[in-house]
Amino acid sequence: MALVFFSDEDDPVQWRALLEAGYPGLEVRVFPAEGEISDVEYALVSAPPAGLLARYRNLKAIFSLWAGIEHILRDPGLPPGIPIVRMVSGDLTRGMVEYVAMHCLRYARRLDDYQSQQRNREWRVLETRPDMRVCVLGLGVLGSAAAAKLASLGFRVSGWSRSRKSQLSVESFSGQDELLRCLSDADIAVCLLPLTGETHEILNLESMSRMPRGSYLINAARGAHIVDGDLLALLGTGHLAGATLDVFRHEPLPQGHPFWSHPNITITPHIASTVRPCAESAAWVVRNIQRIEHGGQPLSMVNRALGY
Amino acid sequence: MALVFFSDEDDPVQWRALLEAGYPGLEVRVFPAEGEISDVEYALVSAPPAGLLARYRNLKAIFSLWAGIEHILRDPGLPPGIPIVRMVSGDLTRGMVEYVAMHCLRYARRLDDYQSQQRNREWRVLETRPDMRVCVLGLGVLGSAAAAKLASLGFRVSGWSRSRKSQLSVESFSGQDELLRCLSDADIAVCLLPLTGETHEILNLESMSRMPRGSYLINAARGAHIVDGDLLALLGTGHLAGATLDVFRHEPLPQGHPFWSHPNITITPHIASTVRPCAESAAWVVRNIQRIEHGGQPLSMVNRALGY
Repeated sequence: MALVFFSDEDDPVQWRALLEAGYPGLEVRVFPAEGEISDVEYALVSAPPAGLLARYRNLKAIFSLWAGIEHILRDPGLPPGIPIVRMVSGDLTRGMVEYVAMHCLRYARRLDDYQSQQRNREWRVLETRPDMRVCVLGLGVLGSAAAAKLASLGFRVSGWSRSRKSQLSVESFSGQDELLRCLSDADIAVCLLPLTGETHEILNLESMSRMPRGSYLINAARGAHIVDGDLLALLGTGHLAGATLDVFRHEPLPQGHPFWSHPNITITPHIASTVRPCAESAAWVVRNIQRIEHGGQPLSMVNRALGY
Repeated sequence: MALVFFSDEDDPVQWRALLEAGYPGLEVRVFPAEGEISDVEYALVSAPPAGLLARYRNLKAIFSLWAGIEHILRDPGLPPGIPIVRMVSGDLTRGMVEYVAMHCLRYARRLDDYQSQQRNREWRVLETRPDMRVCVLGLGVLGSAAAAKLASLGFRVSGWSRSRKSQLSVESFSGQDELLRCLSDADIAVCLLPLTGETHEILNLESMSRMPRGSYLINAARGAHIVDGDLLALLGTGHLAGATLDVFRHEPLPQGHPFWSHPNITITPHIASTVRPCAESAAWVVRNIQRIEHGGQPLSMVNRALGY
């Protein structure tokens, strides 16, 4: 039984060691050294090229190294019916919570303004808004963890998602009307949505205009959630005070893109959260292989109809 | 019965409204309009000039607007025996926790390095250390709250204080030997100590040298906890990778001070945490006046012998 590993970015050596130790009898093969294709029953992938997954005729499950999987669903050769399993790991969640907390605190405490004052040797206490309101878009594993942590830091947090999440401790909204309502009450909007037909370009002139003047945007989901030109327009008028972007339509962000040099845009190179090869992440894959081999369903299966 | 309010920075209007509403019969007078001096039984002060407090012969308690009170104890005219009450408010604690969490995350996630990459339009994932270790110096109300929040964010936290704090969830150290041990295991040291004879210049060449190469310092306590020249020396050799300083020996930090333009020093103008006039802070003062008027002792009294 073999698992094929495909990633441009991740180191296969540790993954192989962890997975082979965790599931005796499993052979981890690193693409393109995939050996006999009929042995390959599992795939662990980041962003495989279209058509790659179709090669493996005996595939039982596809594990994604990324939280977002819309690029896998877009593959026209994607074998139908094979479970796609999203990575759920404490590592991934923790990284995202850190990223969101750091940038919300940075805006709440006006870190950039203080750093700019320092360059002018200026000693001046700046007004800050107490009780900043944050709207978290997307209340899956990452979004709910981020919302809970922000609430514990004293932010006034609300959340928006496709279906209402009543079990959360934060106020939860759903549906298009409530999206606009949620945004209109937010000093910071944090996008952690899956990218689907419904969420594509969800942050556009209409929706972002509803945010109060001087508010901030943090996007750690996918570049295509935002209409780039609309964001630039709203930053240009000062309606939005700043944006922190970890994801872009084209990555790496092209050299000529106006985001790079915008004084109110902070760019990070898709590092908000990553799955490192660690015992916990490997155990997640192993546990799901065990479930499948015992005739069960994997956990955290992607719903292909919903697109996430 | 009157309370005299003295502060260069705080707005007396809201304080007066909140305190007079909270304690009917209490008259709040704003220095220098202190009226009949013999009426003044309470003082609410930030940094009163030496000798000011000695004017009020019928003083029953001195409330400090600041968490640190060493400047009050240094006043040679300070009336002996009068309780000095430290401000304890959720506002003050929350502000400090935010500040410490933000800067620890900033170092852990290499925010400055990513911002510097952005200026060069550079898209590159940087190595980060997982499980950063933070040593919190000072485990009073602010220090224990900061330590707990850092632990909940995934940092490996230890703490150091004059007396061992066994009830905390984080590993706790005390005494000079253990200070060096605690620092030698820290990627980030956070100073939240009171300033006393024992803690004056506690962060010097000897102690800071024990920190691992490439570690960081955050000081939100008092400027005199640090030997400025020793900090500059250790930043110069790269032994310390960076420092975030909210407090200085002379505030505002003098224009010619080398800290201002140091590339690895971040300066904020004593804003880590402040007590705003709010219902909760006013209730704290009112509650303590009530205790004293009923013949009891105020809460959170300063121990003059220990100096905090």
